[in-house]
Amino acid sequence: MIVLAFFLLCLPFFRREGASVSPLDTFFMAVSTVSVTGLSTFPLHEVYNNYGVILLEVLFQIGGLGITMLATVGLVLARKRITLHQRQLIQIDMNQPRLSGTVRLAYSVFGLMMVLQLLFGLLFSLYLYFAQGYHQLSKAFFEGFYISISAVTNAGFDITGTSIMPFRHDYLFLMTIIFLIAIGGIGFPVLTELREWAGIKLRRQDKRQFRFSLFVKLAVFFAVLFFVIGTVLILFSESKGAFAHRSLMDKLMTAMFYSASTRNAGLQLDSLNAFNSTTLLIFSLLMFIGASPSSVGGGVRTTTIGILILYMYSFIRGKRNVNVFGRQIGQDDIQKAVVVVNLSLLLCGTAVLILSATEKQPLTALILEVASAFGTTGLSLGITGSLSIVGKWVIIILMFIGRVGMLYMLMLFVSKRKKDLSYRFPTEKVIIG
Amino acid sequence: MIVLAFFLLCLPFFRREGASVSPLDTFFMAVSTVSVTGLSTFPLHEVYNNYGVILLEVLFQIGGLGITMLATVGLVLARKRITLHQRQLIQIDMNQPRLSGTVRLAYSVFGLMMVLQLLFGLLFSLYLYFAQGYHQLSKAFFEGFYISISAVTNAGFDITGTSIMPFRHDYLFLMTIIFLIAIGGIGFPVLTELREWAGIKLRRQDKRQFRFSLFVKLAVFFAVLFFVIGTVLILFSESKGAFAHRSLMDKLMTAMFYSASTRNAGLQLDSLNAFNSTTLLIFSLLMFIGASPSSVGGGVRTTTIGILILYMYSFIRGKRNVNVFGRQIGQDDIQKAVVVVNLSLLLCGTAVLILSATEKQPLTALILEVASAFGTTGLSLGITGSLSIVGKWVIIILMFIGRVGMLYMLMLFVSKRKKDLSYRFPTEKVIIG
Ligand SMILES: [K+]
Ligand SMILES: [K+]
Repeated sequence: MIVLAFFLLCLPFFRREGASVSPLDTFFMAVSTVSVTGLSTFPLHEVYNNYGVILLEVLFQIGGLGITMLATVGLVLARKRITLHQRQLIQIDMNQPRLSGTVRLAYSVFGLMMVLQLLFGLLFSLYLYFAQGYHQLSKAFFEGFYISISAVTNAGFDITGTSIMPFRHDYLFLMTIIFLIAIGGIGFPVLTELREWAGIKLRRQDKRQFRFSLFVKLAVFFAVLFFVIGTVLILFSESKGAFAHRSLMDKLMTAMFYSASTRNAGLQLDSLNAFNSTTLLIFSLLMFIGASPSSVGGGVRTTTIGILILYMYSFIRGKRNVNVFGRQIGQDDIQKAVVVVNLSLLLCGTAVLILSATEKQPLTALILEVASAFGTTGLSLGITGSLSIVGKWVIIILMFIGRVGMLYMLMLFVSKRKKDLSYRFPTEKVIIG
Repeated sequence: MIVLAFFLLCLPFFRREGASVSPLDTFFMAVSTVSVTGLSTFPLHEVYNNYGVILLEVLFQIGGLGITMLATVGLVLARKRITLHQRQLIQIDMNQPRLSGTVRLAYSVFGLMMVLQLLFGLLFSLYLYFAQGYHQLSKAFFEGFYISISAVTNAGFDITGTSIMPFRHDYLFLMTIIFLIAIGGIGFPVLTELREWAGIKLRRQDKRQFRFSLFVKLAVFFAVLFFVIGTVLILFSESKGAFAHRSLMDKLMTAMFYSASTRNAGLQLDSLNAFNSTTLLIFSLLMFIGASPSSVGGGVRTTTIGILILYMYSFIRGKRNVNVFGRQIGQDDIQKAVVVVNLSLLLCGTAVLILSATEKQPLTALILEVASAFGTTGLSLGITGSLSIVGKWVIIILMFIGRVGMLYMLMLFVSKRKKDLSYRFPTEKVIIG
């Protein structure tokens, strides 16, 4: 997939005349596109022509939605099998559409997202043409659709050189963007269950009990929680900085926008240099957290860090088991969450350490770059282009792992979980902390 | 304890004439002394006279050894109770001295450390007088004992303004310091069991089986492991930097010294400004890890992070249980380790975030300062004195939590662990990562 993208991006057909880019930079671009990160080592609008931009849009669709859908169908199927097994064990009534139904649902959600992109692409185009005074209808359509696709697939690539900065004071526009980013970042399983729920409601099949799965509840809960925390932190951190002379409404909208955008999309309203280093660290944290699993986003994923938080909370409450929404989270899942979060921290820490040795940039810029790559967000203080060769490879690897997900990466190396009941060592207590 | 130290440090009797220090700075000093950190907001040798220095030494003894011994006796007693219980359950032959024996052992270890300090204090004094050309015998004794106490209690305070920099090329001296630091940092339980083992060996009681506890094995294993990793990382990071023109032996000794010193003591051979930012981040990491539990050091503790590493390693090997040295680590202990490491990361991250807003210093210096306070190491790029009031309080809190230990802090807030077997929710799988 990345190889194909690499070859396509190499073709001169998609480039402006005279533009030259090294193979490593093109490969960087290919990984960045397919992982929907949006970091680039050169200004896109100077290298790619309009056909090139359309190619990028197609790659976003494949990288963002296509891969996600495939993974989701796989996961949903796997989950169904487990649920089936569970049902035999603990007799809980759950909604169990047939397998064919699941695949059909995933397709319908995929279709829905395409429709959303078209619909909002059209709306944005008309908005640009009529409200923003674009005189060329074709240019308005081109950019309108680009914004729509960028938001829904959380690509956040910048083709104009100014991202969506010109529209920063149009709150309705911003709210729409936030909504589209959220749709892309909430994850396919959530959309699938919502679609299912809506279908049942519409057909008034109230005989059949419907229950949202624990995962969907957690995904929505933590998406909202991190969104609110992010907004508050950004507001607080910039209250005397970049936001000092803005109206309350403008402050709130900007903070909300960045809280949503940093977690996956990477669209921006201001040059990041306008923010103080505290805010940039907050951005890095939000980017590291990332989006929901099985979404178009990356990072360590909301639910993963959420389960770790719940685990710590349970400990402080003096409980050993993690109970939430009337369900218990399995020890296996907790172990996965712990491993994923801590290995991700280790990975990003190592990346920062390596970059601190190879690059001559302030530490804040490096941390932001690493978090941005791992969270496939694509925000940067503009140092991507001046990275050393080692630095570019570090970022490429981070984008790849960030998009695929730490757990899937691990699965490649993890030995098959053996039934290790054959022999057990006696347990011995040790002193902690 | 801290309050008492505060009042003593306020007394003019211990100060040089004309020296004036604000109450907050003195309180900072009191916490820094009792937590054996060694950060100070003013140059000690300009404010305290010789009596003041002796007072500091006494406070180190109480803060370093006294508190540790009390905690250890408590812990050992608690462990014995559990072991007793275990023995009934699983019938393993373990060494079980009577309770009175444990307390006596702890006292004997405490005595041993006092003897070590006296012995090496004497050796250092003679070394300074004869080999380093100190002409005043009293000055040689004063500084000699100071170095000895600084090393064994891992205080690392600087009373001369140059730490032990003048002796940086004397390898035997450095090896001795590393050995003393290691004794202080390995923890009382290890020393107690070693003492017990030595006693049995000497009395040739080979009839009675002796087995080192799992904790002691882990503590020694991870102390050595982190020491080696630290040495290699520092060597590698500075191979083209500060170490470029040194001999191989000098490089190795310096790297070993810092690998040992950063984890708890905070003695230094060079101004930290000589190191590049990668090395400073490595130092921060080592300081964050800290020493063994129940030692004179702080940080998140070696065994705590070690158990998390073992837990992740087990996961990658496809195992659910953590088996090491022929024993299994309990789920409770794993939960504690996970909570302590991640809460400590959260604490230090928050501290860096706050300092990045209140201080006008490069991020690297702030990270180093935070890790230094939490690890009660006391290394600094010299920004301690210019910290804002908020900044000083942040560091005070970090030193306190770092010394007491995250787990003990949590215990104050944790509800009593209830037998939560009364009702259980059904377990439901969720998607991770
Ligand atoms: K993105
Ligand atoms: K220290």
